[in-house]
Amino acid sequence: MKFYDCVTAPSPPRVRIFLLRRVLPWRPYRLICGTANNSPRALNPDCMVPVLELDSGAAITDIIAICRYFEELHPDPPLMGRSAEEKAVTESWLRRIEWDGIYAAQEAFRNATPGLKGRALPGPVSLEQIPALAKRGCIRLQHFFAWLDARLTDNEFVCRPHFTIADISGMVAVDFSAWAKLKPPEHLGHLQRWYKDVSTRPRAKA
Amino acid sequence: MKFYDCVTAPSPPRVRIFLLRRVLPWRPYRLICGTANNSPRALNPDCMVPVLELDSGAAITDIIAICRYFEELHPDPPLMGRSAEEKAVTESWLRRIEWDGIYAAQEAFRNATPGLKGRALPGPVSLEQIPALAKRGCIRLQHFFAWLDARLTDNEFVCRPHFTIADISGMVAVDFSAWAKLKPPEHLGHLQRWYKDVSTRPRAKA
Repeated sequence: MKFYDCVTAPSPPRVRIFLLRRVLPWRPYRLICGTANNSPRALNPDCMVPVLELDSGAAITDIIAICRYFEELHPDPPLMGRSAEEKAVTESWLRRIEWDGIYAAQEAFRNATPGLKGRALPGPVSLEQIPALAKRGCIRLQHFFAWLDARLTDNEFVCRPHFTIADISGMVAVDFSAWAKLKPPEHLGHLQRWYKDVSTRPRAKA
Repeated sequence: MKFYDCVTAPSPPRVRIFLLRRVLPWRPYRLICGTANNSPRALNPDCMVPVLELDSGAAITDIIAICRYFEELHPDPPLMGRSAEEKAVTESWLRRIEWDGIYAAQEAFRNATPGLKGRALPGPVSLEQIPALAKRGCIRLQHFFAWLDARLTDNEFVCRPHFTIADISGMVAVDFSAWAKLKPPEHLGHLQRWYKDVSTRPRAKA
C-alpha cells in the first residue's frame, strides 16, 4: 500500500491527523511524500494528492474516502461514528464544515493569490481567478466562524461528545482560512476555546 | 422518523432514487413533502432539504449522510460498497462526481437564473450572483462530461461492476446540468449509453 502525500498542501493534514489518532500496530503504507506532482496521473486523473494506492491496484483519491478506509479496518477510536445514527450525524457535520469552511477558504485563497493565476481550482483544468469569488469566500468564512461558534456554545466538540473527523476538518478549515489572511474574531469565545483545545492536543498537527 | 423533502429541488432525488432501490419491508419514515420552507430551522440551520429527523431527535441534514444511514441499516443491495475497499473507492468516485458535476451545475445554474438573484448559494446567507462563475460552471461541466465519458469507455457503471450511488449522483448531475441549459454532447457515446441505461431503469426517477 502506498500513500502519496504533499506536506505543503492545505488539505492532506486532514488525513494525516486522522491517521495519527489511531494506534496502529504498524504503519500499513509506504509514504511517498513530495510535491503535488508526485501523484501519478494514472492513479488520479485529477492530479491531486493525497492518493492511497492499495495492493489490489485500486486508488482511493479522496481525503475522506481514505479516512473511511482506515476507519473500516481499524475502527478504534471511532472518529467517523460507530452506529448508523452516529455515522450519519458525523457525516452531516463533516460535510457542512467542508462546504461552509474548507470550500469557502479555498474560494478566498485561490482566487486572490498571485501565484495561483489560472489555478483557481485544484485539478487538471486551468481556470482563471474570479476576484468577486475571493470576496464571496471571505463573506462565507465570517458566517462559518459565527455558526461554528454558536454550535460550540453548548458542545465541547462539533458533533459528538468526543473528538471526531468533523473537529479535524474544522481545525483544518480555520488553518486554511489563515492562508486567506482571515482568522476567527477574538470575540467568538467558544470557537477560540475549541480551536485552542483541539489544535494543541498531542498529535493535532501533522 | 420524519423525512422532510422537496419535489422541486434538484438534489433530493439522489436520496429518493437511493431509497427506491432498496426493497424495504416498510417505509420507515413519515414523508413531509412540500417547499424548501418546510424544513424546520431548528432541525437544519442551513434551511435546506432533505432532512431526516430520527426518533431520537437527531437530524441528518445531508443527502449522502441520509443515504449512509439507510445503507447501514438495510445494506442490500449495497449501493455504497460492502468491504472497506469498496466503500472507499465508491466514495472517491461519488465525491468526484459531486465536485465536478453537481457543484459545477449549481455554479452554472444559480449564478445565471434571474429568479435566484441574491441566492447564488443555497442556505441562509444571501449571496449575489457572479456572472463569471456561471460561465466557469459551464466550462467545468464540459470537462465533467468528457471525463465521465472516458471513464465509461471500459466500464458499464461509474465505479463498480454494478449500479452504485455514484451512478445515481452522476445521473442527477446530468439532469441538473439541463437546468443550466447544458446537455452532454451527442458524440460522447459512452456517456449517452450509460445515461440512457441508468435513467430508463425502473425506479430511476423519483
